[in-house]
Amino acid sequence: MAIITLTTDFGHKDHFIGAIKGTIYSELDDARIVDISHSISPFNIQECAYILKNSYKTFPKGTIHIVGIDSEETPENQHIAVFVDGHYFIVANNGVLGLIISEVLPDKIVEISLPDTGQTSFPVMDVFVKVACHIARGGTLEVVGKSFDQLRDLKEFTPIVSDNLKTITGHVIYIDNYGNVVSNIQKSLFEAYRNGRKFELKARNKKLTVIHKKFSDIINFDLDKNQRKGPGDLLALFNSSEYIELAIYKSDLNTVGGASTLLGLDYRDTITINFI
Amino acid sequence: MAIITLTTDFGHKDHFIGAIKGTIYSELDDARIVDISHSISPFNIQECAYILKNSYKTFPKGTIHIVGIDSEETPENQHIAVFVDGHYFIVANNGVLGLIISEVLPDKIVEISLPDTGQTSFPVMDVFVKVACHIARGGTLEVVGKSFDQLRDLKEFTPIVSDNLKTITGHVIYIDNYGNVVSNIQKSLFEAYRNGRKFELKARNKKLTVIHKKFSDIINFDLDKNQRKGPGDLLALFNSSEYIELAIYKSDLNTVGGASTLLGLDYRDTITINFI
Amino acid sequence: MAIITLTTDFGHKDHFIGAIKGTIYSELDDARIVDISHSISPFNIQECAYILKNSYKTFPKGTIHIVGIDSEETPENQHIAVFVDGHYFIVANNGVLGLIISEVLPDKIVEISLPDTGQTSFPVMDVFVKVACHIARGGTLEVVGKSFDQLRDLKEFTPIVSDNLKTITGHVIYIDNYGNVVSNIQKSLFEAYRNGRKFELKARNKKLTVIHKKFSDIINFDLDKNQRKGPGDLLALFNSSEYIELAIYKSDLNTVGGASTLLGLDYRDTITINFI
Repeated sequence: MAIITLTTDFGHKDHFIGAIKGTIYSELDDARIVDISHSISPFNIQECAYILKNSYKTFPKGTIHIVGIDSEETPENQHIAVFVDGHYFIVANNGVLGLIISEVLPDKIVEISLPDTGQTSFPVMDVFVKVACHIARGGTLEVVGKSFDQLRDLKEFTPIVSDNLKTITGHVIYIDNYGNVVSNIQKSLFEAYRNGRKFELKARNKKLTVIHKKFSDIINFDLDKNQRKGPGDLLALFNSSEYIELAIYKSDLNTVGGASTLLGLDYRDTITINFI
Repeated sequence: MAIITLTTDFGHKDHFIGAIKGTIYSELDDARIVDISHSISPFNIQECAYILKNSYKTFPKGTIHIVGIDSEETPENQHIAVFVDGHYFIVANNGVLGLIISEVLPDKIVEISLPDTGQTSFPVMDVFVKVACHIARGGTLEVVGKSFDQLRDLKEFTPIVSDNLKTITGHVIYIDNYGNVVSNIQKSLFEAYRNGRKFELKARNKKLTVIHKKFSDIINFDLDKNQRKGPGDLLALFNSSEYIELAIYKSDLNTVGGASTLLGLDYRDTITINFI
Repeated sequence: MAIITLTTDFGHKDHFIGAIKGTIYSELDDARIVDISHSISPFNIQECAYILKNSYKTFPKGTIHIVGIDSEETPENQHIAVFVDGHYFIVANNGVLGLIISEVLPDKIVEISLPDTGQTSFPVMDVFVKVACHIARGGTLEVVGKSFDQLRDLKEFTPIVSDNLKTITGHVIYIDNYGNVVSNIQKSLFEAYRNGRKFELKARNKKLTVIHKKFSDIINFDLDKNQRKGPGDLLALFNSSEYIELAIYKSDLNTVGGASTLLGLDYRDTITINFI
């Protein structure tokens, strides 16, 4: 039995998630449902894409991902079902899919067209769940809609390389539970342009010259404990998704603050790398 | 194996939910447990009822719903197990059940009386889970208690029709994750009194003359994009549970605000419909 | 198939939990994964310990508990797998395990050493999940590491008995979803020193002379409703985990407040019992 994952901006309080799960279990007695996130900021396509991009591949091939964000069907926001990279996505054509799969090409896209589902303000339950259960039972995409080639392409903020290849200018694309600030500068891009040079990473009025592999790499364990760096110190690292990230070591947004609050960095703010 | 759902005001941080699930799995190796919500405002019977009323029916018949709100047993708050509408509810007699099932009549109600469960400040784990597992194993209600006919009837805020059938006065009963404001005026009531008349819906200083079927219905897709209504505009709709709801299109309570914050509407505030 | 539980400070928004579950399902088709909590305050070892101490025992013997807090491997924070009290814990050696199991002695501890897992800033997915799946498939601890005897012992705040056995001085160790304040004074300690004496419990400027078994015990149901104690009144009780707890009856931190906000009590603040 395939896994069905849920990623939405529905939050954890309302009845929506419960109603979706009840509907799935009513169709598929032995469904395996996994919550990826329901705490995406309302209608925030970029956040949703970052979360799915960094989790969908960990699931087995054949997993069905229901993406419940900005999902009302309109003439400009079709319901689509997509098979790509071995995974199924059921989603509105609001641009999130392109951001999730980046340069991977979909094997098949259909525009969903089910009988008996008219106008609805809850399409994730009324439409997406039906399609997911159909696929989970082994059904094909052809049955739920016809081929579609108008996949909406959202412009991603991409880093800019300038100044005779001496500068990379990126932006903040995600802020995590610890207040760590994730930029859109990937390790692969950084290394492609670095060419063995030294560099200076700038964010607001802070400058860093090392990018670590893990958080605790800022600590020199040969030093005496009170001479070491530690909680409260700023660092840059390639995070587990291979993006350059700024972090405060052992931060807590509710008490001491994190990189986002202490540096005053928000979505879309600039992070610059100058090779020297 | 029956499904056991959990709806509580326990929140997501404390050990309570983990302890409940561990106890269930220790009794029922192959239990299927579904969280409906744990983020109900503490002791808020109305919120709990709205959430369950709008989700329990999506589950298969025979599902067992544990309702963990205001659940301490007292002489005035008995523990009861109820079979109604094909579903089981295990709940304290605090009025929530009547609000969930509305006019549906229970087939059976028993007051729970188990041996070996004395005074406890955690009855959901110590009592409700035991009853749920008993039912999941195919046990009958008669074994866990004796017949009970004192179901507490909480006065629901019901809309008032007045002024020679020209006015419906309702109240806010729920505010959702987007700040959308749900009234207790149901579509069926509205249509029953409308008689083809025009109307004016009033909330605070706002007036609306259309109630939509879905959020994006406020957009006229024939217009140029910068002439359309869109994010930030107020609308009324019959929500997916068929209540009249006020919404700000594509709202986000953490940034631009939602209908609740922008209109200043809170629980129990008034929403009026005048037929013209 | 063994159950795998997750307890982390990852929060509910980011992709981390989804990625962990996807990785588990990719290794174990029929895994049963249970979330205990993901809302622990970042790096708060004491909170994490309180939550697991009060929930792990409810799970069946053989359950595998992944503990994702302060889990980066360093020379002073080894990755360990522990078998104790019939349960498996996969955790960093940051002191949390000792606080969870208190005086129970582990049957076996190994320092995890897997091939092909180098430096990682996401060890819960890259290391802990692999060990958990190995154990779930029936593998032994010996295969994933070598015996380890350097278990870090965090000093727990323990209550102090003084003044010729007339005073117990404890501290706040947890604040729950309702704002109830949990002290580290256990019922067993209290009863061991009480010797039938009367007592006065002091917290800030409040004094209490009774410790109840459940919240509603403060209400005298023989009295008329408007003469009774009720919502808003302060009480002390032995909570369901047998610690002395201060609570406001039917509190809500978002509206009327709870014991923590109304009494101004925070982590580590003092609660005193004087026997008279």
